[in-house]
Parts: sequence; structure tokens; C-alpha cells
Amino acid sequence: MSRRNARSKKHVPVFSRRSLPGSAPGTLIVDPEAPRPVIRIMSFGPDKVVEKDIDDLRTVRTLFHEWPVTWIDVAGLGDLSVITSLGEIFNIHRLALEDVINVHQRPKVELYKGYCYIVLRSVVDAEEHRSEQISIFLGRNFVLSFRERSGDHFDPVIQRVREGTGRMRTAGPDHLTYALIDAVIDSYFPALERFGESIEGIEDAIIAEPHNALVSRIHDLRQGLLILRRAAWPMREAMNILFRDPIPFIDDEERIYLRDCYDHMVQIIDLLENYRDVASGLMEVYLSSISNRTNEIMKVLTILTAVFVPLTLISGIYGMNFSPQASPYNMPELHWRWGYPFALGLMAVVATALLLYFHFKGWLGSQK
Amino acid sequence: MSRRNARSKKHVPVFSRRSLPGSAPGTLIVDPEAPRPVIRIMSFGPDKVVEKDIDDLRTVRTLFHEWPVTWIDVAGLGDLSVITSLGEIFNIHRLALEDVINVHQRPKVELYKGYCYIVLRSVVDAEEHRSEQISIFLGRNFVLSFRERSGDHFDPVIQRVREGTGRMRTAGPDHLTYALIDAVIDSYFPALERFGESIEGIEDAIIAEPHNALVSRIHDLRQGLLILRRAAWPMREAMNILFRDPIPFIDDEERIYLRDCYDHMVQIIDLLENYRDVASGLMEVYLSSISNRTNEIMKVLTILTAVFVPLTLISGIYGMNFSPQASPYNMPELHWRWGYPFALGLMAVVATALLLYFHFKGWLGSQK
Amino acid sequence: MSRRNARSKKHVPVFSRRSLPGSAPGTLIVDPEAPRPVIRIMSFGPDKVVEKDIDDLRTVRTLFHEWPVTWIDVAGLGDLSVITSLGEIFNIHRLALEDVINVHQRPKVELYKGYCYIVLRSVVDAEEHRSEQISIFLGRNFVLSFRERSGDHFDPVIQRVREGTGRMRTAGPDHLTYALIDAVIDSYFPALERFGESIEGIEDAIIAEPHNALVSRIHDLRQGLLILRRAAWPMREAMNILFRDPIPFIDDEERIYLRDCYDHMVQIIDLLENYRDVASGLMEVYLSSISNRTNEIMKVLTILTAVFVPLTLISGIYGMNFSPQASPYNMPELHWRWGYPFALGLMAVVATALLLYFHFKGWLGSQK
Amino acid sequence: MSRRNARSKKHVPVFSRRSLPGSAPGTLIVDPEAPRPVIRIMSFGPDKVVEKDIDDLRTVRTLFHEWPVTWIDVAGLGDLSVITSLGEIFNIHRLALEDVINVHQRPKVELYKGYCYIVLRSVVDAEEHRSEQISIFLGRNFVLSFRERSGDHFDPVIQRVREGTGRMRTAGPDHLTYALIDAVIDSYFPALERFGESIEGIEDAIIAEPHNALVSRIHDLRQGLLILRRAAWPMREAMNILFRDPIPFIDDEERIYLRDCYDHMVQIIDLLENYRDVASGLMEVYLSSISNRTNEIMKVLTILTAVFVPLTLISGIYGMNFSPQASPYNMPELHWRWGYPFALGLMAVVATALLLYFHFKGWLGSQK
Amino acid sequence: MSRRNARSKKHVPVFSRRSLPGSAPGTLIVDPEAPRPVIRIMSFGPDKVVEKDIDDLRTVRTLFHEWPVTWIDVAGLGDLSVITSLGEIFNIHRLALEDVINVHQRPKVELYKGYCYIVLRSVVDAEEHRSEQISIFLGRNFVLSFRERSGDHFDPVIQRVREGTGRMRTAGPDHLTYALIDAVIDSYFPALERFGESIEGIEDAIIAEPHNALVSRIHDLRQGLLILRRAAWPMREAMNILFRDPIPFIDDEERIYLRDCYDHMVQIIDLLENYRDVASGLMEVYLSSISNRTNEIMKVLTILTAVFVPLTLISGIYGMNFSPQASPYNMPELHWRWGYPFALGLMAVVATALLLYFHFKGWLGSQK
Repeated sequence: MSRRNARSKKHVPVFSRRSLPGSAPGTLIVDPEAPRPVIRIMSFGPDKVVEKDIDDLRTVRTLFHEWPVTWIDVAGLGDLSVITSLGEIFNIHRLALEDVINVHQRPKVELYKGYCYIVLRSVVDAEEHRSEQISIFLGRNFVLSFRERSGDHFDPVIQRVREGTGRMRTAGPDHLTYALIDAVIDSYFPALERFGESIEGIEDAIIAEPHNALVSRIHDLRQGLLILRRAAWPMREAMNILFRDPIPFIDDEERIYLRDCYDHMVQIIDLLENYRDVASGLMEVYLSSISNRTNEIMKVLTILTAVFVPLTLISGIYGMNFSPQASPYNMPELHWRWGYPFALGLMAVVATALLLYFHFKGWLGSQK
Repeated sequence: MSRRNARSKKHVPVFSRRSLPGSAPGTLIVDPEAPRPVIRIMSFGPDKVVEKDIDDLRTVRTLFHEWPVTWIDVAGLGDLSVITSLGEIFNIHRLALEDVINVHQRPKVELYKGYCYIVLRSVVDAEEHRSEQISIFLGRNFVLSFRERSGDHFDPVIQRVREGTGRMRTAGPDHLTYALIDAVIDSYFPALERFGESIEGIEDAIIAEPHNALVSRIHDLRQGLLILRRAAWPMREAMNILFRDPIPFIDDEERIYLRDCYDHMVQIIDLLENYRDVASGLMEVYLSSISNRTNEIMKVLTILTAVFVPLTLISGIYGMNFSPQASPYNMPELHWRWGYPFALGLMAVVATALLLYFHFKGWLGSQK
Repeated sequence: MSRRNARSKKHVPVFSRRSLPGSAPGTLIVDPEAPRPVIRIMSFGPDKVVEKDIDDLRTVRTLFHEWPVTWIDVAGLGDLSVITSLGEIFNIHRLALEDVINVHQRPKVELYKGYCYIVLRSVVDAEEHRSEQISIFLGRNFVLSFRERSGDHFDPVIQRVREGTGRMRTAGPDHLTYALIDAVIDSYFPALERFGESIEGIEDAIIAEPHNALVSRIHDLRQGLLILRRAAWPMREAMNILFRDPIPFIDDEERIYLRDCYDHMVQIIDLLENYRDVASGLMEVYLSSISNRTNEIMKVLTILTAVFVPLTLISGIYGMNFSPQASPYNMPELHWRWGYPFALGLMAVVATALLLYFHFKGWLGSQK
Repeated sequence: MSRRNARSKKHVPVFSRRSLPGSAPGTLIVDPEAPRPVIRIMSFGPDKVVEKDIDDLRTVRTLFHEWPVTWIDVAGLGDLSVITSLGEIFNIHRLALEDVINVHQRPKVELYKGYCYIVLRSVVDAEEHRSEQISIFLGRNFVLSFRERSGDHFDPVIQRVREGTGRMRTAGPDHLTYALIDAVIDSYFPALERFGESIEGIEDAIIAEPHNALVSRIHDLRQGLLILRRAAWPMREAMNILFRDPIPFIDDEERIYLRDCYDHMVQIIDLLENYRDVASGLMEVYLSSISNRTNEIMKVLTILTAVFVPLTLISGIYGMNFSPQASPYNMPELHWRWGYPFALGLMAVVATALLLYFHFKGWLGSQK
Repeated sequence: MSRRNARSKKHVPVFSRRSLPGSAPGTLIVDPEAPRPVIRIMSFGPDKVVEKDIDDLRTVRTLFHEWPVTWIDVAGLGDLSVITSLGEIFNIHRLALEDVINVHQRPKVELYKGYCYIVLRSVVDAEEHRSEQISIFLGRNFVLSFRERSGDHFDPVIQRVREGTGRMRTAGPDHLTYALIDAVIDSYFPALERFGESIEGIEDAIIAEPHNALVSRIHDLRQGLLILRRAAWPMREAMNILFRDPIPFIDDEERIYLRDCYDHMVQIIDLLENYRDVASGLMEVYLSSISNRTNEIMKVLTILTAVFVPLTLISGIYGMNFSPQASPYNMPELHWRWGYPFALGLMAVVATALLLYFHFKGWLGSQK
């Protein structure tokens, strides 16, 4: 039963519902199964970086006025007070906070007064096609990111901040945001790789031996592609908005980097669409293989029938009981010296003739 | 017979026709089966709310000049006088009133002088995919809503007005309108949930045992999706107009909320389209399962024929009446000591050989 | 043969060709089979209406200078002189007149100096999906309409002009044009209704018993939908132009009415597209029913073969002529006391075992 | 073999390649199989027309400065010197000349300094779906047209220029260009007519008797439609540019005529798309007819088997050799007075019962 | 195994991944299997051309300040130092350099400060549908091109620069860029030609004898078309940007040439889409051929069964052992003088009758 549930979670996409239908907008109700948040705070400028694991979030308020960039990363949405406190500190709209908690949003970019709200989806399990919502708030001098659970997607970014690689610490919060987006996009590639392998595997299997399980595999493949596509298309749209629209918190210099993100999303979608076409083609190939196989089986049946039925008739004829006493015309063969060999020979001749006929009709050759 | 009708009502979408083809535009003819209206009037400001069930609608005229927001909710369209009276009081265009009565409109937003006319469709029965038309007139200080019948969709909104939750009483009629729209959108989610369950059920059934009733279920599923899609797409369009276009009765602050509505509609459509793709895929999976099954049956038939026909031939041969008296070549086997066991043994050998052949050809293994 | 022609006329859409390929543009050649025109002239203002059946068209010239609105309705295009006279009087471009005569135009709106030329298509026979071209010239103070033959589509409009209902006589020629367009759009609804019934009928028939005639019915349905769609889409486009574009002869007040026409066309197309999807689905349902039926028949055949072939083998074995005299091993059963009942019993046991086997394999239950 | 080539020429569309891949742009290499050009020069004004068949093209230079309109029509592209001379005289860009020679261009409109270059495709063989490239250069006072070979497409235009019909001589070179475009568009209609006939023929044949040759016919039909579509869509686009874009050599008055051309192309495409839909539908109808037929054959086979196999079993049973001497239970029927008639009667009863069963199951009635 | 890999490389499209997921943007990691670069440097003006194979790239810096046009062509991406040195000299953005190395980019045009970055894909193996990435940097007075490996695509361009054909040396680097693009586009035509041949071959084979290998061929064809399409569409887009957008390094005169490139891409895509449609059609034709064949085989089987089963029944009846001694009604035929000929004659009559029946039913004629 639990396996069944696991499967359904994978297959049938979930939808976003306001916590309680009919509740007032902006009502924040936390999913009871969401993990407790792990909070990481990094403040940095070109020269220095300060890292904290604070319990009292109110100290953040002072922090982000003192440093060029402050990044608060919340991994786990199981504590409402954390989210509302941060919401108050950074002056986040209730509707945006609601979207942070209801983790089935489509990727999007929304401009609010004082910050830009970016929703992304990262692929957390390439095998199961499970994706996770990443919410990023980009302000003048802060980045606030929310993740469903703590994973290792952002680890390289944290590392780069610590080491001050490239423009990581010299550029503003927009570059940090870019780095986070880039990390999210990177999570799509293993899933694509797996799809590619899956398609190859199915192709090989169809050629070797078409069997019914392939239909399920093709169906699963298509479902998985649909799910990834649902995440990827609005991601692309969001990237497009980020690099084209005049968003006040994003530098012109940074747009070149965001254009690169957009490019990556275009490539991902390109491949997904390509895989979709291939998957449809595979279904057709499978169906035609089945038809062909039916054809082959029919041929075997027909040849069998064609060869044996006349022989059976011959044997039936010489099994008739016409009385040779009554007349010389009644089955004289039965009394021939070579009657029985004649009958067997007749059968052999008929069978050979039919097999030759089918041979020349090309039915006996392998149709593979 | 009545079940049939119920089914057809569900399946074949109805269309909007002017009450009487050829009648003058704006001719108002009430559907005789429409229920009698239940009218609720709520006038409110930040501090106070007055609720009335008035019979004499003319008092409304004074009401809505005195209060910041007056909301008249008419549930049931069976009384023409109510509709025309309200039409006169709020100065509603005849064509708009006609659309209120002819309840098969597509969702839309139309700007008239003095008010904005919004047509929505809510899902009243997720099982039957029945939707209901909601007409909302939004003016400077009034909201006038018409529903086909009284249901509980608006109850949470009424509650929030009474309790003055959130911005409900402090904001203008645009916020009330938003709340009503939000309530209508909420009605789509149970239907989506049901579709998800339906798809899962069909998937499981195909894997377990493909039978003909599944075709009807897939067909019903697709019909239902088509019906919901027909309501959802123009809903999205209408939401887009409401949050983007400069409509005089809608505050900038309120647009953020309407954008949220638009977001919800985008998600709903996203899922509907996804379900449509899945449903098409299910049909293909079903068809290939059937083909496969035909294949399996053919194999059984062919194996049966292949095994038994040679045996029958052998029995036929030894049933021939060639006279052993006439010649020693005529069926000497019949007089062998081990003739009968030899014949039976021959049959056993032939059958075993054929079964082995089919075994190595892989026809005997289960193809699941 | 004539039935065949009738059918082909219905199915294969005709195309518009200039009367004589290679002839100069604007060459007017009347279809010899077109009916003689019936002309109706109505001049009216808010207070009065004058109706004439004039032979001498030249008097029209004076008429339409004296009255706020003059409507000349020509039903039947069989008289070239009528069309050219009217063309001269109202100063109509040769190309527009050509389009009036060649009655296979797509609906369109063209602005010329002094008038606006509107081409519409009305459905004259919902059963046969036959449509008719309606040409309307809307000028500052005249409306000139051409129809292929005299029908009753415009009767309600004539009636409303006579009675002066609504804004009919107080508004200008644009309102009359709107009324005519509205009447044309009304002609689509019976055809839609018939499509709905047809779909329901086919659905029921597929469930009851899929037979080959259904393919033709589905094919006819789809052809019909294609034909109506071909008329409806450009109608919608034309309506859109009329209500959005700044056409000098159309009042702002009138645009609200034309928006209503546009709304109706959107609804019609919405339904047509819906029906198209449903019709495609029906074909798939039909095909899968056929596959299923083949499956069922195959099963019957296989069960029959499986049950009877072993029985025949048994009877064949005991029909062999091995000589019991030659050896005690030769068919001793033939001399058993219960030999014959044993053989029959063996057959019964084998048959029962096989039937039980098929029963447990689920092949015997009805698959509906 | 040559038939095969003819077929392939018809089916597989050719592509445009620069004469020699890697050669410099503007390299003009004439197809050695192109026919020698036939040149016709017509200079005309409102009052007079001069027609010449000149050898020395240099005299053209003076001609086209003296006359309001000079039209040079080159039919046949086999002489490079003619093309380059004209190119120099009229100052044509090398790339444009290259396009004139490489006759697989898509229809297009390109504006160069001093002239407008229009590429069209006319249908030269409705049966074979062969199209021909027509290049037209429209300048301030000249029209230069190139055709692949001399045909009769332009004869009516030549005639109208000679006779001065309509605006032919009074209007400028833009009207002449319009007349040529119109003549090219006229060449599409016979091909459309043929498609219509072809569809009807296939429809009738499917209903009468679905046989395999129909698949080829449907395939050919669809190929033909694809080819025409490939020519028609860019033609439409080109027409749209000509009537909408501000091209300096085209009068406002003339735009009305070009709009008419655009209208014709829209109608042609409309029909082509319609035919495409119908052709797809035909394939489905054919496939379902085949499925149905398989079904029918299966039924015949099953009924045959069902009826004869039990009878054969009965005959087999009474052909067994159980010894009546050994026991009274051994086949007493063989010694009944009515034994043989009883056996035949039993067979008749079984056969009748089975036929009745199939009759009530509806398998015996014709399924057409 | 290695064959399998070759196949997978052909079929399943690869994707672009940042060298190391999670690495900083602009991290350059060279593919260890990339070939060592072959560098060619050409500096030229209208009068003179200088060609160098330099090892010390730093001399380039002086070169490209002295000459109107300097072209550096790098064939092979296996040496990181070459790429970074050139990047420094020409001031290329790190992200652009990253794209040069990661050779799975989609064709695109990106404007940077000081240069325009163009990514193209050329077809290097028409048979295997393998494409190669070409990166071109176009600056004020330089062209920098990177290729995956050294091939002969650019040889004609090198030749034309050496010889100074046409505008090659008189025009600026934009003309050189055009020539390179043109050379890349030329690489598509052999692949198209091969597709055309492949389609023809499949068409012929389906008509001659539909066998299962055709499915693979159609599948391969469609895969190949998908791959080329993936390269061609963004190529077209890139061409469109180059000829329409105001790119500072491109002359107005040159735009006419780039428009020609765009035209070529449009034609290529046109053909690819056409081929796709044809390939889909071929699959349908194949499937219907298979269905038809199944039908034919079924017919043969049914005729065989129908003809032989009654004959077998007759022989069975006369093989029954009803005792003629017991009664005159028991099988008197056995004692007729012409009993045996009568039985054989009866069989002949039945067989003939059945064959005639099938003949008139049209089952015996060839269905081809």
C-alpha cells in the first residue's frame, strides 16, 4: 500500500491550495510534516564575511543595515514563527509569505515594493522526478532564501562566499541571487541525463523483444517528462523576466550572467521537448512491433493450418468405410499393394508443395 | 431514461442562446426552472456592518449612497422583477442583464460606464463537472453579485465581512470583489483533486486488467477535463485583465491580490493541461495493452493448433483402412506388437518437441 | 448518382474563383443558377418608416438623401443589372461587387471610402451544414445587404424596424447593421444544437454496439464541424475588427452591442473546438471498441479450439485400427466393458478441465 | 526506372542550393537544362503600346526612360548573358539575380534600392503538383519578370495590356505587377479543384471497398497538399507585405487590389488546411474500416470453427472402434435401427443451435 | 559495445553542462578528448594579405591594430592557454569563453561590449547527423572563430580571402563573418539531400514489402530530423537577429547578405518540417500496410478452414461405424456402387461452391 502511495506521489502532480479553502488570503498555516528550519546567516563585504547561527532573529535587523550583503537561508518550513518574524523584519507581503509556505507554486518573478520575489523549483530526486520549491527574496542589500528541506544544492555557493571566489563578495546581492539560481538550474542536468539513459534503454529493449512492460516504462518516461516540463517552462519565463525587465535590484553587469541562466533553461527545455518527441515515437515503434508480431504469429498459425488440414483430410478419406465388396469403385486404393505408401507419399507431396508455396510467398523467411 | 438525460447533461456542453432567436437584443426572459432569488444585502464601513433581507428593493437606492460599500447578493435568477429593479437602481446595461440571465456565458470582464461587469464560473459539482455562472458588478461603492442558486461558496466571505477580518471592511468594494473571485477559484480545487484520483484509478486498473469499461472512464475523464478547461481558460484571461488593465474601480494595492488570483488560475490550467496529456497517454497505454492481449490470445491459439493438429493427423493415419491383406506394405504398424504404444509414444514425442520449440521461441513464458 | 452529388456538395468545400480565370479584376459574371433578386427598400427615421418594392432603382438615389436610414435588401443574386445599378448609386468598388457575386468569400470587414464592406456567412441548413454569404455595405446613412436567396433570417429585424422596437429606428444604420449581424449569428445555434445531438447519439451507439456505420457518422460529424469552423473563425475575426477598430460609421454606443456579437462568436467557436475534441475522442473510443471486440471474438475462437481439438484427438485415437489380435497392448480399451463410457467420460473431464481453466483465467466472463 | 524518377521528382521536395557550395555569393551559374529565354518587351502609356522582340537588349535602356511603363518578360532562364545584361541595365543586386536563377526560392518580397523584388510560385501542373518560380522586379517605371519556361499564364495580362482594358494602361507598373500576381494566384485553383475531386474519390472508394491502394492515394494526396502548402503560405505572407507595408513603388489605390490578392491566398490556404484535416480523417476512416474488416473475417472464421468442430467430433465419436461384443455399453448406437439418422440429426441440431446462438448474438447480420 | 556507443551518440542528444556542476561561473575546463588547436591568422586589407602560423599569440595584439581586418581561426579546443590568451587579447567575457569550450550550445547571437558573439552549428556528418559548434567573435576590426576540430568547411572562404574575390577584402570583418556563416549553412544541404533519399527509399520499400526493419529506419529518420531541427531553428533565429537588429559591427550593405543567409535557413527549416510531416505519414502508411497484411493472412486462414473443414466432416461421417446390418437406414451409402465416387464428388462440389462464394465475396482476388 505504501509503495502504491509512493508511486502516486511520483505520478500525479499535486496542486497548490490555499491552506484552508475559504480562509482569508494571507492566512499562514504550516504543513505539519514540514521539517524544522535550519537557518544560516552570512553577512559579507569585499573583505570580510561573518557567519552566524542565531536563535534570536531580531538581531538580523541590525545586521543587514551594517553589511553590504546579508544572506539568510532558511532550509525547512516547519516553524511558522521564523517565517513570520523574517516577514516582519524584511517587510514581506502576506501573500508572498503564503506562497513560501504553500510549496506548489510555479516558478515566477514578482516585484514588490522593496524587494523582488523569485520562486524557483529545483529537482531533488532525478529518479523520482521530485522537485522542491526555492523562494528567494532579493532586496537592496539582502537575500532571503527559503527551501523545503536542507540539502546540498547551495553548498558550492556557500563555499564560494566563504572563499570570496570571483565576484562573489565584491558584487552585490544580485550576484548572490544569480549564483543561487545557477545552483538550482544545475539540479536539472542529472534528471536529463537519466531521461537520456532511459530512452536508450527502451530503444534497445524494443529492438530486442517488445514486451508489455515497455508500455509502462514509456508511460513513466512521459509522465516524468511532463513533470519536469511543468517546472522548466515557467523557470525559463522567470529567467527571461530577470534578465530583460528593468528590475531595480539587478545590475546591468549582472544581466549578462542572468542571460546565461536563461540560455541554460532554453537548452533544458529544448532537450525536454526533444525527449517528448522521441518518447512519442517510441510508443509508435512499440505499437508497430506488436502489430508485426501478431502478424508473425498469424502466419505461423496459417501455415500450420494450411499444411496439416489437407493431410488430415487425406487420412480422413482413407478412413471412410465404403464397402469394397459393394463395388470396384469403392476405395480400390485400400487394396492396392502400395496403397499405404501411396497415401503417405501423397501427404508428403501435398505438404512439400504447400511449404514451397509459402516459401515463395516469402512467409517462411524471418521477418525481422 | 432519466439517467441517460443526467448523463447527457453532464457530457455535451450547452451553449448560450439569446432567449428567443430573433428577439430584440436586451430582451430578458427568465428560465422558468430557475429557483426564486434569495437576496442578502450587506452595507459596511470600517466600523460597522448592517445586514438586511429586504423585500422592497427600492430602499437599496438610499443605502448605497450612505455606506462606503454595499453588497447585494442575489442567489437564484427566477424572478425577473428583482433583476430589472436592480438593473434600474444600478443603471446596468440591458445586454449585461441579458448575460446575467443566460447562464452559459464564458468568464469575461467588461467595462461599462459606472461599473465593471465580471462573469465567472464556479464548479458546483466536482463529480458531475457542473459549473455555475457568477455575475459580479463592481462599482465605485457597491458590489452586486448574481448566482444561479444559493450555495455555500460565499459563506466564508460573508463571515469575514461580519467579523471584519483583514482588510475586508477597511478596503473598498474591490477587495470584496477579490474575496468573491477567490472563493470562486477555490471551488476548482476539489474537482482537480477528483481528476487526480480518477487518473490514478485508471492507471492502476490498466495495469491490473485492461477491460472495455476503462475506455468509457478515460472518455469521461477527457470530457470532464474539456468542460473544466472551457471554464478555466477564460477565467484566467479575465483575471489577467483585472490585474493588468487600468480598471478605474480597482486600487493598485488590490492588484497584488488579483495577481494572486491570476496565479491560481495559471496553476489550475497548468494542471488541467497536464491531466489532458496524461489522459491521452492512458488511452495509448490501454490500446497497446489490448493489442498485447490479442497477441497473447493468438499465441495460445497457435500453440494449441500446433500441438494438437499433428496428433490428430497421426490418429487419422492409423484410422485409415488400408487393407493389410492386400500387401505387407499396407499399415504393418497396425499389427506390430507395440503398435498402439508406439502411436501414443509418437504423439507424446511430437507434442513434447513442439512444446519445447515454443518454449525456446519464448512463447510459453508469461509476457507480462 | 444525384444522391452522390448531393453528398459531395455537402462534403467537399467549394472555393472561390474569379468568374473566369484570367479575366480582368472586377469582371462581374453572374452565376446562371442564382435566383432572381427580391428587393426590399425601407427608409426610416425615429418617427416614420417607408417601405417600397421598386422596380426603378434610380429612385433610390433620391431616397437615401432624404431619410436618416435607408436599407436596401437584395435577396437573390441572379440579375447583374440590379447589382451594377446599386453599385453605381452607392459608389461601390468593382472588387467589392465581384465579392458580392462570388459567394464563397470568407467573412471579412473591409473599409472603403464612403462605406464599410462586411461579408458574413449564415447557416441556412443545419442538417447539411450549408452556409450562405451575406454582404452588407454600411454607409453614413444607408445599409445595403445582399443575400444568396430570400430566406426568413432577416424577418425579425424587418419586424423590429416596422414596429420601431428598442433603438431600432432612433439609432443610425450601424444599429441596423448590428441587428442584421445578430440575426446571422443566431443562425449558427440550431447547427450547434444538432452537432450536440449527433455526438450524444454516436456516444450511445458506440456503447450499445460499435458498428462500421459509426465511422461514417463520425467522419460526417467532423466534416460538418470543419465546415462550420471555416465560417465561424473569420466571423469572429470580423466581429473583433468591427468592435475594436475605429470604423467611422460605427458609434461608440454601438460598439457595446458589437462586443456582444463578438462574445457570441467566441462562444460558438469555443463549442465547435470542444466538439472537435470530443469527435476525435469518439473515433479513438470506437477504434478501441473494435479492438476489444476482435479480442473477444479471438477468445471465443481460442476457447472453441482449445475445448474441441483434444476431444477430437481422443475420438481419433479410439478410431485407430491397431489390431488387438496382434498384441494385448494394442488398444485394449476397445474391449473394456466400460470402454465407450470411459472415452466419453474422458472427453467430459478434459472439456470441463479446460473450461475451468479458462474460467479462472477470466476469459469466460463478459468483458463489457 | 524512369517512372520511378518521375515519381520521386513529384514527391520529394527539392531544395535550393547555391550553384556550387562554397562559391562566392552572387556567383551566377545557369542550370544547363534550363530552356533558352523568350523575351517580350512591351512599353505602354495610356494611349499607346509598343511591342518588341529585340535581340540587342541595350536598346531597352533608352526605352524605359521614354515610356511610363516598360515590361520585360523573360520566359526561360537558359542564357546567362540575358540575365546579367538585364541585371546591369536595371541595376539589380547580384544576390537577387542569384535567386532568379536558383529556382527553388520560397515566395518573398524584398525591398532593394530602386526596385522591389517579388518571388512567387505558380502551379504549372495541378496533377503533378509541380510549381514554377516567377521573379518580378517592380521599379518606378518598369516591370521585369522572369519565368522558368514560357507558358500561357501571362497571356490574359498581355491581352489586357494590348487592349488597354480597365486601368491596365492608365495605372502605373504597380497595376501591371498586380495583374501578374493575380494571374499566378489563378494557377492554384485547378490544383485545388483536383484535390477536391481526389478526396471525394477516396471517400467513395473507402465506403465501397477499402483496399490497400487507397493508402497510397491518401499518402499521395497528403504529399501533394504539403507541397502546395509550402508554396502557398509564403505567398500569403508576401501578399500581406505588399498590401500592408509602405513600399514606395505601390500606390494606395493599388493596395485595394493587392488586398484582394491577399484575400485569395487566405482562401486558398484555408482550403488547403481544410483538405489536410479531411485527409487525416480519411486515413483514420480507412484504418477503422480495415480493423472492422479483420473483425468480420474473424467472425466468419469463428462461426465456421464453432459450427463444424462439434460436428466433426460427433463423426469422430461414431468412428471409434469400441467393441460392441465386449460389452453392451460399447457404442450401442451403432446398432440402433435409426443410429445413422440419429447421428446426422444430432449434427443438424447442434449446427442449428449454434447458428441460432450466433444469430442472436448478432454475428450473422451484415455489419456494414 | 562500441557499436552501441556509436549508436547512442547518434541518437540521444547530449546536453550542455557547466564543466563541473556547482563550480563558479566562467570556470574554464577543457574536454580532455578535444583535439589540439590548429591556429591560422590572416590579416588583410584591400591590397594585401598576410598569413601566419604563430606560436606566440601575443604578437596578435599588435597585428590587429595595424590591419583593417584580422582573422584568427582556431580549429580544435584542446589547449586552454590558447583560448584564455585570445580571451585576454580580445577582452572576451569569461561566460562567452565558457560557451566556446562547452560545445553543446544552441546557436545564438549575443552582444557584448566591443564584440558580437555568434554561436553556430555546422553539420559535419550528414550520415550520422553529427553537428559541430562554431563560435565567432566579430569586432570592429577582427574576427575570431573557434571550431571543434579542423575540417574543410572554411577552405573556400580562406581561398576567397587569398584571392580577394568579390568584396572579400574590400569590405570589413562583417563580410568575412557573413562568408563564414554562409559556409556553415552550406553544410546543411548534403544532410537534407540524404534525408530526401532516405524518405524515397523507405517509400519504395513500404510499397514493395512492409517489413519490421522499416520501423527502425523511420524511427532513425525522425530522430535525425529532430536533431537537425534542434540546430536549425535557433540558427534561423540567430540569422534573423543579425540581419534585423542594429548590431554596431554590421554594415547596412552587409545586411542584404545576411538576409540571404536568413532566407537559406528559412528554406532549410521549411524542408525539415516538410520531411517531418512526410515521415509521420510514412509511419501511418506502414502501420496500415501491416494491418492490411494481417487482414490478408486472416483471409487465407479463413478460406483454408472454410474449405477443408466441411470436407473433413464428410470424410468423418463416412468413417463412422454404424452397423449396416442393424438397419437399412444405417449408412446405406457405404454399399452403393458409386458410394466412394459420390463422397469424393460431394467434397468437390462443396469445395467448389465455397471457393465460388469467396470468389464472389472478393476474397480471392489480390488485394494489392
